Amino acid sequence: MSKPEVPDFLRNVRVVLARPSHPGNIGAAARAMKTMGVTRLYLVEPKRFPDAEATTLASGAADVLENAVVTGTLDAALEGVSIACALTSRKRELTTPLAAPRDACAELLAAARDGVEVALVFGNETYGLSIDEVARCNRLVTIAGNPDYFSLNLGQAVQVMCYELFSQLAFPLDHLRADAELASHEEVEGFYGHLDRVLDGIGFYDRRNGERLMRRLRTLYDRASLERQEIDILRGMLKQIERRCGPDPYRHD
Amino acid sequence: MSKPEVPDFLRNVRVVLARPSHPGNIGAAARAMKTMGVTRLYLVEPKRFPDAEATTLASGAADVLENAVVTGTLDAALEGVSIACALTSRKRELTTPLAAPRDACAELLAAARDGVEVALVFGNETYGLSIDEVARCNRLVTIAGNPDYFSLNLGQAVQVMCYELFSQLAFPLDHLRADAELASHEEVEGFYGHLDRVLDGIGFYDRRNGERLMRRLRTLYDRASLERQEIDILRGMLKQIERRCGPDPYRHD
Repeated sequence: MSKPEVPDFLRNVRVVLARPSHPGNIGAAARAMKTMGVTRLYLVEPKRFPDAEATTLASGAADVLENAVVTGTLDAALEGVSIACALTSRKRELTTPLAAPRDACAELLAAARDGVEVALVFGNETYGLSIDEVARCNRLVTIAGNPDYFSLNLGQAVQVMCYELFSQLAFPLDHLRADAELASHEEVEGFYGHLDRVLDGIGFYDRRNGERLMRRLRTLYDRASLERQEIDILRGMLKQIERRCGPDPYRHD
Repeated sequence: MSKPEVPDFLRNVRVVLARPSHPGNIGAAARAMKTMGVTRLYLVEPKRFPDAEATTLASGAADVLENAVVTGTLDAALEGVSIACALTSRKRELTTPLAAPRDACAELLAAARDGVEVALVFGNETYGLSIDEVARCNRLVTIAGNPDYFSLNLGQAVQVMCYELFSQLAFPLDHLRADAELASHEEVEGFYGHLDRVLDGIGFYDRRNGERLMRRLRTLYDRASLERQEIDILRGMLKQIERRCGPDPYRHD
C-alpha cells in the first residue's frame, strides 16, 4: 500500500504567531505544523528571528522556518485571508461566537478546499492576543481544558490545532494497516462445527448446556471478526487436542 | 457564570509511559495531562525518575509527578485495566484494528464513564513500543500526520491524545463566553425599517433597485444574528445620519 499524499489545499492554511518572545517556540510550532502537513508560517514582530534555537527545535522542519514570512503588523500577515481564527483562552468582551477547535477547523478546511485563504492566529506566550489583535480576526476559538490548571504552551497549542485540522482530512491509514483477510461464512461455520465436536468429544458438555455454551462462544468469536489465518490457527489447536485426547468417538467428517 | 468541573470519571484514565529516556518528556507529559484533566501517570522503568528536569518541565503539574506510579513491567502498570491503547506510528504485524484517536477516545471515555479502567500507552522516545509491549495492549491507535515528515515527540503525542479525550467531554464554554442577548424579531424588523427609510432619504435608492438591496442587507445582518446592543448601536448610527443629512422627508414614525 503506497503512502497517501497530504492534500494541496492545506497550502491555503497559514499559522500566524503574533509577537512571539521565544525562538524555541517558533521552532516547536514549525515542527508541529509540518508534522500535520501545514507549512505556511507568518511571524508578526518576532523578538528574535531567525535564531539558532528556533532552527534546533524545528528539527526536520527548518524549511518551514526558511519560508516563514516576517511582518511588522498583524494586518500584513493576514493579507489575502478571509477567515482568521484568533486563539484565546480568556473571557473576551467581543461577542463573536466562541468556537471549539473541532467546529472551527471544519469551517477552515471547507473554506481552504474551496481555495479560500484562512489563518490560525496565536498570541504572545505571556500576554496572548491583544484586544486589538483579536478584533482584526473574524473568528474566536478556544481550546477547552481543565479550568483549574490550564497550561498549554504556544507549541502545544499550535500542535493541537494542526492535529485537529489534519484529523478531519479523513486521511487513509491503510498504509499502516496489516494486510488481513476476513474469514468467510463457511470457514467460520467450519470452525464452530469443529469446536463443537471437540468440546463434546472431550466431555466438556457433560452436565452442561452445550447449545448455550456454543452460542456464547459464537458471540465471542463473532465479535472479534475472525481472519482466515486465525481460523487456521484455531483449527490447528483443535486438531492437536483431538490428537492428544484420543480419537473422537463422535467424529463423522 | 461559574467554572465547570472536570468530571470525576477521568480518574479511570491512566497514561502509561513505557521506558521513557528523557526526564523532560515525563514533565511535559504531566503538564499536558493535567491541562486536559488527566492525572494518573504510570512510568515503566523510567531511565531517570524523579528528576529535577521533569519537575521543571511539569510546571504547575508537579502533583501529577508526585503521585506517579513507577513499575518494573508494563503488566504491573496495566493492572486493573480493561482497555489499553498502544500508540504506534509504525506498520505492525498485529491485525488488531488500527484506530484513529477520535474513535479510540470515544470508546475510552464511554468505558471510563462506566467505571472501567482504561490506559493510553506510549513507548520509548527513540524506539516506540516493542512488539511485546504492543501485544500486551488490546487496542492499536495511530495519530495520522504528514507521511513525509512525522515528528511528534512524546510530550506532543500525550498532548494530542489528552486533548482528544477532553474535547469529547462536551465541556461547556459558557464561562468564557461574553454575555449577549439576541435581538427579538420586532427589534430586528424595527432596524430594517429604519435602515430602509434612511437609505431612501439620503437618495441611496435613486437609479437602484431598493427592494433588492434591502433583501441583500437583510441577508447579511441575519447571518450575523444581531444582538440587542448591536441594534442600539446601528440605530444610533442611523439617527446620526438623519441628523446630519437633514430631516427625512419620508419619515412617518
